Amino acid sequence: MISTPFDPSAEGPRREDAVLERIVEILGGKGLLKEIRNIGDDCAVLEPFVGQTLVSTDVCVYGVHLDDQIFGVEDLGYKAMTSAISDIAAMGGRVRGALIGVSAPAGTDLELLHHGVADAAAVTGCPVVGGDLTQSNQLAVSVTVLGECPGGGAVLRSGARPGDTLLVTGPLGRSAAGLRRARAGVALNDELVLAHRHPWPRLAEGQAARGASASAMMDLSDGLGLDLHRLADASGVGVELTDLPVAEGATTEEAWSGGEDYELLIATSDPDRLALVFADRGLRAPLVIGRCVEDATSRRYRGADLPRSGYQHSW
Amino acid sequence: MISTPFDPSAEGPRREDAVLERIVEILGGKGLLKEIRNIGDDCAVLEPFVGQTLVSTDVCVYGVHLDDQIFGVEDLGYKAMTSAISDIAAMGGRVRGALIGVSAPAGTDLELLHHGVADAAAVTGCPVVGGDLTQSNQLAVSVTVLGECPGGGAVLRSGARPGDTLLVTGPLGRSAAGLRRARAGVALNDELVLAHRHPWPRLAEGQAARGASASAMMDLSDGLGLDLHRLADASGVGVELTDLPVAEGATTEEAWSGGEDYELLIATSDPDRLALVFADRGLRAPLVIGRCVEDATSRRYRGADLPRSGYQHSW
Repeated sequence: MISTPFDPSAEGPRREDAVLERIVEILGGKGLLKEIRNIGDDCAVLEPFVGQTLVSTDVCVYGVHLDDQIFGVEDLGYKAMTSAISDIAAMGGRVRGALIGVSAPAGTDLELLHHGVADAAAVTGCPVVGGDLTQSNQLAVSVTVLGECPGGGAVLRSGARPGDTLLVTGPLGRSAAGLRRARAGVALNDELVLAHRHPWPRLAEGQAARGASASAMMDLSDGLGLDLHRLADASGVGVELTDLPVAEGATTEEAWSGGEDYELLIATSDPDRLALVFADRGLRAPLVIGRCVEDATSRRYRGADLPRSGYQHSW
Repeated sequence: MISTPFDPSAEGPRREDAVLERIVEILGGKGLLKEIRNIGDDCAVLEPFVGQTLVSTDVCVYGVHLDDQIFGVEDLGYKAMTSAISDIAAMGGRVRGALIGVSAPAGTDLELLHHGVADAAAVTGCPVVGGDLTQSNQLAVSVTVLGECPGGGAVLRSGARPGDTLLVTGPLGRSAAGLRRARAGVALNDELVLAHRHPWPRLAEGQAARGASASAMMDLSDGLGLDLHRLADASGVGVELTDLPVAEGATTEEAWSGGEDYELLIATSDPDRLALVFADRGLRAPLVIGRCVEDATSRRYRGADLPRSGYQHSW
């Protein structure tokens, strides 16, 4: 960024402003930029938020969060968006907009990447309101998602109480099973492979759970075997699991610690009301997996100790 | 990301949750987490914003935006924060909070990095409200800053009109001169080197310019030689420059296209009022550099054509 004079007559690599213009075209062509009144400005200026403001940042690295030998950069863009949006779902919020920070090696197909971003923005109704583009040795996409909870009441992971029922919004292990199948050569449009490439954030389910006064909630991005402990730690409760819903085609290990399913883990003192609200909104019934107990040190599955298992980075 | 089981008894690299805990300690120790009611949740939940909501993302890559042979990771953390905050300054806003997305190679001193982030958060009054941590080949820090404009009226870069006076908030080229001096072995606490390591976002000046009804504004992150054209393009005006304020110790080339000075470029129809508001708030007087003209194709400095020159990435 220091002293690299710009030569408008230069052949060769496309310059930043030209690439940005093309990206704005890609996003604008899908009607995804309507909230931006000032493309090219230093900041996006957004209309007032309703109720609580939610905000979260996720970084997706090509080759770490997505196998760069199998999946294209459009999948990285798509997955970076929807996995970040899942954090808004996990609070029971609705999305307002996303900012995309891309650091990319020379030669990266940035248009393809942003086609993936645009597709995810379109299916989730989350316009892109800003971003940044820079150079790096390894492709990384940082997505910041803004959301809101009209009327307040964002569902934290710290609100579970002894006696609460624990549920998940769907069977687990689909993403890990999909990755395994893709590595074995299964087609990229296989249902489980799609669950890995294009995870679906449970926005409707999260809002339904908030509407049903769920006591605690989080998404299962790192796997139930790790995230369940995090919810229990934050809430100061123990857990007694009775069931592990394993998705068809997935192994128990994948369901337990594969991660990236983005199903929601919900605690509630009134599971009947939760089921009713889900049914009323046409959503698949949530699955009971167990309950919270008083002894915060007790973490058990069918009588046996429940070790922490799931994905963590190391440094 | 998939199926790397967590072994709590493992020796060696520190696990993600432990690193995050230490980072929260570093930030919390400086009183910078007061807005967060839910550390560890999927999203930060923020109190309602006043007026317009501003949001911007910037990515700083170690070795691209900051020389990794000279400057430490604490400088990267500091600079990533303050250069992102400069985008809020450039709209005339005040800061509400920042999210830090870090992708880092194994062995990165993440505590040192976050000490830099915490120092910048402290001096700018911008609490860290969230973040993400992941692995990558090259250290990159993505900062999303949230701000607000009470009463509205964020100053866009598209509002300049023919006849408006153009001003900058300070002499230019300090950052590029500082980098040159550091590479020549000058001490890291040299004034110009500090301007490169720890750029200061012009928050007070931006708010003063908004208060004085400036017509257009932006920060000079990529250098006047490029950013001036961007403001003129967005506003549909031409420019006639009369002065280039070169900082003491900097060359004309550094002032023109070095970039990263983070001074503000301001257009106003009432430069006397602007000067008055700045003086009233105890701010250094802004420097007149020229004016806007009707012919949008005319970009001139003392009668000569003004080429675009400044930093752009290529792909």
